[in-house]
Amino acid sequence: MSHTTEPPAPCCPPLTERPFTAEESERAARMFKALGDPVRLRLFSSVASHEGGEACVCDISDVGVSQPTVSHHLKKLKEAGLLASERRGTWVYYRVEPSALAAMGALFGAAGRPATP
Amino acid sequence: MSHTTEPPAPCCPPLTERPFTAEESERAARMFKALGDPVRLRLFSSVASHEGGEACVCDISDVGVSQPTVSHHLKKLKEAGLLASERRGTWVYYRVEPSALAAMGALFGAAGRPATP
Repeated sequence: MSHTTEPPAPCCPPLTERPFTAEESERAARMFKALGDPVRLRLFSSVASHEGGEACVCDISDVGVSQPTVSHHLKKLKEAGLLASERRGTWVYYRVEPSALAAMGALFGAAGRPATP
Repeated sequence: MSHTTEPPAPCCPPLTERPFTAEESERAARMFKALGDPVRLRLFSSVASHEGGEACVCDISDVGVSQPTVSHHLKKLKEAGLLASERRGTWVYYRVEPSALAAMGALFGAAGRPATP
């Protein structure tokens, strides 16, 4: 099990700094889109807030959708680079990609930068 | 013209704090979805980073889509509560809703909260 904290992915500057390039917009929009579904966002917060920073599907199935749907959404979050997963025994465990969380936070000036000039 | 800074909208706790309720997920996902399109995100960063904190359509039309498309995207951002607009003379001016920016930042622990426990 390797839960090392990677440095934040160099995605994009804060949204208030300068107009995004087409490439930056593509990259950041991919993450926003993945979180733009209520069930997916709920699952993401379930993983992100779970004890120990990770959760298996068995831990987060109380969102009112079927387990295959849960798995589908978790896959989408993984494809967007927001979650990482690891199989251990019977279960696949999911955790938030720290670099993705940092990159998203940086878009809103979470790195100590004021949000507005 | 009133550019007062409103207090952050009480949307949701940081994503890492606890699993979101269905209602919180609905509210936050609406904002994420609005930013989940590359052109829309680029327009948003253009408005957010524009001198004086606001821009009219005439200022931000260099994103490679038609002006009606720009207007359509700006409308979507407004509907999601991310932009506010005001007509002054010939042009409609857009600015970022400070409360929305603060609410989004808070989701990623931008209020000085550590992103991971």
